[in-house]
Amino acid sequence: MTKPLSDHSRLCIHTMTTKPWSLHEAIDGYAAAGVPGITVWRQHLEPTGAREAGRMLKDSGLEVVSLCRGGFFPAHTDADRQKAVDDNLRAIDEAHAIGAPLIVLVCGAVPRVPLTTARAQIVEGIVSILPHAASAGVRLSIEPLHPMYADSRSAVNTMKQANDMVAAIANDRVGVTVDVYHLWWDPDLREEIRRAGDSIFSFHVCDWLTPTRDILNDRGLMGDGCINIREIRGWVEEAGFTGPIEAEIFSNEWWAGDQAQFVERIRSAYLAHC
Amino acid sequence: MTKPLSDHSRLCIHTMTTKPWSLHEAIDGYAAAGVPGITVWRQHLEPTGAREAGRMLKDSGLEVVSLCRGGFFPAHTDADRQKAVDDNLRAIDEAHAIGAPLIVLVCGAVPRVPLTTARAQIVEGIVSILPHAASAGVRLSIEPLHPMYADSRSAVNTMKQANDMVAAIANDRVGVTVDVYHLWWDPDLREEIRRAGDSIFSFHVCDWLTPTRDILNDRGLMGDGCINIREIRGWVEEAGFTGPIEAEIFSNEWWAGDQAQFVERIRSAYLAHC
Repeated sequence: MTKPLSDHSRLCIHTMTTKPWSLHEAIDGYAAAGVPGITVWRQHLEPTGAREAGRMLKDSGLEVVSLCRGGFFPAHTDADRQKAVDDNLRAIDEAHAIGAPLIVLVCGAVPRVPLTTARAQIVEGIVSILPHAASAGVRLSIEPLHPMYADSRSAVNTMKQANDMVAAIANDRVGVTVDVYHLWWDPDLREEIRRAGDSIFSFHVCDWLTPTRDILNDRGLMGDGCINIREIRGWVEEAGFTGPIEAEIFSNEWWAGDQAQFVERIRSAYLAHC
Repeated sequence: MTKPLSDHSRLCIHTMTTKPWSLHEAIDGYAAAGVPGITVWRQHLEPTGAREAGRMLKDSGLEVVSLCRGGFFPAHTDADRQKAVDDNLRAIDEAHAIGAPLIVLVCGAVPRVPLTTARAQIVEGIVSILPHAASAGVRLSIEPLHPMYADSRSAVNTMKQANDMVAAIANDRVGVTVDVYHLWWDPDLREEIRRAGDSIFSFHVCDWLTPTRDILNDRGLMGDGCINIREIRGWVEEAGFTGPIEAEIFSNEWWAGDQAQFVERIRSAYLAHC
């Protein structure tokens, strides 16, 4: 049995978890609550721009864990695929500007682009942005998404598919993100986490609610659902990962409430269930 | 490329597809539209009971393809597992009474029963009802469900898992149902359909809508979504299946409209996209 966490030193929160907060409010809120890590979503950079955001983050003393999100490579036309590559190059610049060592890739999918075609386009997209990522000192992480997003968000839907891509690209700068929400049902999860080993770049937590009332924004606080979060953390740690544990909770319900109280609930749930 | 279907001889509709209709209305509506097959959901038997429903179905001349649904075997307590078995025995009696040669199993899942435990309970449940199924002349079909239902509806979420169960049970009376909605994203779909071969007992169609606004009842008419339905039909036929093609569309939107018009739309979509 994996032991409970005894302190908050590995806790990180995604700015999308506290979506109603501006980046400035999130930085202040996390710092005030003793949350040491932050993962920044690109829409939270927009109001100030990445350079000013980078100054705020540096001043805060928070650890910038990653930038969310790059990816969305597949498209029906070459022109749209090039647009996606260009946007990922900008994301790399933003990550560099805010001191984020990692970009999480929601790899993309498009209705009626066959999944096998989409996967080939994803590999090609990642390879094409790798030189720029290398020169910016930024790593790239493939996040498998739940199969309910295979139509329009990601053609990478199992840990095995993500590992196969990492193996095909064969570059130390490319790894995987294990998100319990997307992967808890995966039939090969334990073996494929073991296989991933050092290429596990990040670890996301939340919970699966029954019933799930919204396909996008009804994630649960850890402990409120059915996911074996602590067991999966144990597997990830056995594989060698000891980095941040990132609370990424999209929830219409939590977003409607007080965000500082929500952060406190995350801190408690993190110790009780992660 | 799989050739389009040239007539409606293999079309079957699920009574849940036209949920607002009573069984009597469904029988009349399908017969009037030239739909030769019907799959009956148990709630549509309740008002009249299975015996009277059986008389109506026999008089109609429709082919009764299957009864939906048995299953839901996993539970936290032995008492609840026994209740599930008893309910499945009743379902077998109902199938016998209406002349349905097949019961489709939504195998079940319960939050916080580990998926591996749930799968063992499912196999045990199926094995325990097999003698009664044999004496009633009814076959049982394991339907893998989409992973978004792994919390509360089925711990069987891939074609491989269903095939593995069929192999473990090793009884000709137990096979699988291929439903394109649940399986279109499955990474091993073509190989596992080939592996299933003669144990494919039924084939369900509808489409995956983008966006999907409801996790249960926002299925699309064939052609309105992103599923490669005809290609999957080709794989199922290569494996040897030439039986009914069953339209199983749960849709708040279609249920709100005229059901006779919906049946006509299904007939057109069946020729155009299946």
